[in-house]
Amino acid sequence: MVKRLMFEKPLGMRDTLPFFYNQKSKARRQLSEAILSYGYSFMDTPLMEYHDTVGKVSATLDQQLFKLLDQQGHTLVLRPDMTAPIARVAASQLKNGEFPLRLAYDGPVFRAQQAEGGKPAQFEQVGTELIGDHSSYGDAEVIALLVDSLKQTGLDNFVITVGHIGYVKAFFSDLLGDDEETMETLLHYLYRKNYVGFRECVKSLSISGDKKQALLELLSLRGGEEIFEASRSLARNQSCMQAVNELKQLYRLLKVNGVEDYIQFDLNLISHMEYYTGILFEGYAPNLGALLCNGGRYDTLLPSFELNASATGFAVHLERLVEALNDFEDQDERIGIIVDDDSYAKGKRKADEYRKEGRAVLLQHVDQIPDLPAFYSQLANTIDFTQVGGGQDE
Amino acid sequence: MVKRLMFEKPLGMRDTLPFFYNQKSKARRQLSEAILSYGYSFMDTPLMEYHDTVGKVSATLDQQLFKLLDQQGHTLVLRPDMTAPIARVAASQLKNGEFPLRLAYDGPVFRAQQAEGGKPAQFEQVGTELIGDHSSYGDAEVIALLVDSLKQTGLDNFVITVGHIGYVKAFFSDLLGDDEETMETLLHYLYRKNYVGFRECVKSLSISGDKKQALLELLSLRGGEEIFEASRSLARNQSCMQAVNELKQLYRLLKVNGVEDYIQFDLNLISHMEYYTGILFEGYAPNLGALLCNGGRYDTLLPSFELNASATGFAVHLERLVEALNDFEDQDERIGIIVDDDSYAKGKRKADEYRKEGRAVLLQHVDQIPDLPAFYSQLANTIDFTQVGGGQDE
Repeated sequence: MVKRLMFEKPLGMRDTLPFFYNQKSKARRQLSEAILSYGYSFMDTPLMEYHDTVGKVSATLDQQLFKLLDQQGHTLVLRPDMTAPIARVAASQLKNGEFPLRLAYDGPVFRAQQAEGGKPAQFEQVGTELIGDHSSYGDAEVIALLVDSLKQTGLDNFVITVGHIGYVKAFFSDLLGDDEETMETLLHYLYRKNYVGFRECVKSLSISGDKKQALLELLSLRGGEEIFEASRSLARNQSCMQAVNELKQLYRLLKVNGVEDYIQFDLNLISHMEYYTGILFEGYAPNLGALLCNGGRYDTLLPSFELNASATGFAVHLERLVEALNDFEDQDERIGIIVDDDSYAKGKRKADEYRKEGRAVLLQHVDQIPDLPAFYSQLANTIDFTQVGGGQDE
Repeated sequence: MVKRLMFEKPLGMRDTLPFFYNQKSKARRQLSEAILSYGYSFMDTPLMEYHDTVGKVSATLDQQLFKLLDQQGHTLVLRPDMTAPIARVAASQLKNGEFPLRLAYDGPVFRAQQAEGGKPAQFEQVGTELIGDHSSYGDAEVIALLVDSLKQTGLDNFVITVGHIGYVKAFFSDLLGDDEETMETLLHYLYRKNYVGFRECVKSLSISGDKKQALLELLSLRGGEEIFEASRSLARNQSCMQAVNELKQLYRLLKVNGVEDYIQFDLNLISHMEYYTGILFEGYAPNLGALLCNGGRYDTLLPSFELNASATGFAVHLERLVEALNDFEDQDERIGIIVDDDSYAKGKRKADEYRKEGRAVLLQHVDQIPDLPAFYSQLANTIDFTQVGGGQDE
C-alpha cells in the first residue's frame, strides 16, 4: 500500500506562515502605494490561461510552464508571468481605453521546477506595465517608479542595472555578419552571465584579432555614465549609436527624477533571449543571491495580440524583496482577554472598547486554553477576567 | 489549420478590470480589518496541493477539482478551498503553537466548471479558522466576527441562517432506523433545498403516518428563537435535545455579542453532505442569487491530519460580496500633468508635490497621447505644462 502523503507539498510549493505573511503584506502595501501615486490602475487576470493565448508568447521557457488539459482538450497553463495576460486584456477589453495605459498587478505566478530543494514554483510579483508610450520618458518613468517603490519599502541599498539589447545585437551583427549560430552562442553566455565562457568562445572563433578584441571589449562596458563614451567609441554602426543615445537621454531623465544614484549601466545585460527589444534592466540588493526585480521595453508582444503598441514595465519578486528587507521586527500588539461563563459579557465589552481603538483583541474562554502560560506568552498584554471576578452580567 | 485562441480564457475564468479590482480591494481590506481586530493571524498556502493531502479531505466534490500530474506521477489539485490546507499546516508546522489557534486567509480557490456561462472556476475567499476551541463561545465568536466583518464593508441587509447537522441526523436516525439509503436521499433533498422533493419522498415512504408527519414538520423548523420550543417538542432523542440546547446557548452568546438581529435559525440546513459536524451556517444578502458566505464546525478534518482538535470557521465569497454591496461609486481622483521636452522637469516637480500630498499623478509627455480630449476625460484634473510654457529648466 502506498503511504498517504499527509503533510507534503508539491515540488517548489511553500506555506506562508503569519510572520512572513505580515512582512509580505507590508511590503506589498508600500509598493502599491508608490505605484498608485504614479496614477497606475491595478487589475488582475485568471491564474489559468490557454497555452495558445499567453503560454506561447510569455517570457517563460516552455519547460517551466505548469500545463494541464481541459475537458475540451485544450492545453492550459498556470500563468508564468503577468505581462502576457495583461497584454491580452490591453489588446481586447481595454483597446479603446485612454492610451498610454498605466496598469499594475500583484499576484502569484508559476514556474515548474525540475529538482528538489530549488527555487519556488509559485511566487508573487508586483509590477507595472506602461502601454503605448514608446518614448524615453516612458522608460524613465518605469525605472523611476521602480526606484521609488523599492525606497518606499525601506530598501535603500539596491542597484538597478540598465542595458540595451539593441546595442548588443547590432554590435554582434556587425562583427559576426550572418553567423547567427555564433551570435546565439555568445548571447547565451551573456544571458547566463558566464563571462569566462564568453571569452573562451570568442578566442576560439575564426575571425580577425581586431574583431576578437572588440568582442572582448564589450565586457568592459559596465559602470556609470562614463561608459557612454566607451560605448560610443566601440559602436560599429548606426544602430549601436542610436542605442547609446537612448541610454544617454534616459540617464538625463533619470537625473531629473533624482534616482541616478541607484543606476548602473551594463551593455552585456541580456535578461531574456527573445523578449525585450530596447532598454532593459535588472535590480539587485546586497545579500540577496538572486534577481530582485527586472523589466524593460517589449515591442513585439502587443502586436502578437494585434495591438500596435510599444510597452515597458517592471516586476518585483515580492518574497525576495522581503528577504532583502531582512526586517525581523514583529511586535505582536495583540491583547488577550481571558473569560469564564460569568465574565464573558464583561470581557466582550472590554474587547469591543479596545477594538474600537484599533487594537487586536483575542477574547478567549479559559476552559479552551490547554496551556495558559504559553497562551499568555504570545500576546502583548493579557487581562484575566476570571480572577477579577466578572460577576453575573447585569 | 486550427485558429489560434487569441483573446479567449478557459471555462469559468475571468479578468478583473481596474474598477472591479478597486472594489474588491476595498471590501477585502474592510473584512481584513475586522478579522485582525479579533486577534486572527493571516497566513497563506500554495495554490497547488497533492490530491492525497488536501484534495481528498476537502469539502469540494471530486469532479469539481482541477487536477494535474506532476513529473513524479502524483496527482495535484488547484486548491478548492483553504480549510483543508490550513488544517494541514495547523497539524504540522503550527501544532506546537498556542491553542486555540486563530488563523485567517484571503486568496483564490478553484472549482472546475462543466458548462459555459456558468459559475466562475476561480474566485476569492476571505475566511477564518478557530482551531482547538470546541465550545459554544467559539461558535459564537466565529458568527459574531462574520457579522462584524460584513458590517465593516457597509453591508447591512444580510441574514446568517444557523442550523445544526446533529439535530437533523439524530432526528432522521430515530425515525428511519437503519435505512441509510432513505436518510441519504432525504439529506440530499435538504442539501439542494428541494423541499417539494423532500415532501414527495416522505409521502412515498413505507413508514407510519405519525412518522411521516414528524418528518414533514421538520420543514417548519425555520425562523427566530421561537423555533427552539418547536424543535424541542419535535425532538426524538437525547442527541436532538443536545443540539437544541447548543443552539439556545449559541443564541444567548450571540445576543451578548449584539448580533442577534442578523440571525435566523433553520434546522433543515445542510451546507455539505459530509463536512460539518455541529453548528453550521450560511449567509445571504438580498438581490444576490447565490450564497454570500458559509461556515460551521468540523470535527473530523483535523483528526485526519492526526491532530485531535475541533474547529470552526467561515468563508466569505469576495466577488459576491462586492456584487451585494452594489457600490458603483468610483471617483477617479487622479491628476494628469501633461508636459513636453522643455517642461518635463517642471512637471516632474509639480507631480512630486501632489504625490507627497497623497494624490495619484500621471506625468505624461504630450507626444505620446493619441487622443488628448479622451486622455483628459479620464482624470479628475489635468494641468497642461505645454501651454503655460514650462521654459528651459534652470
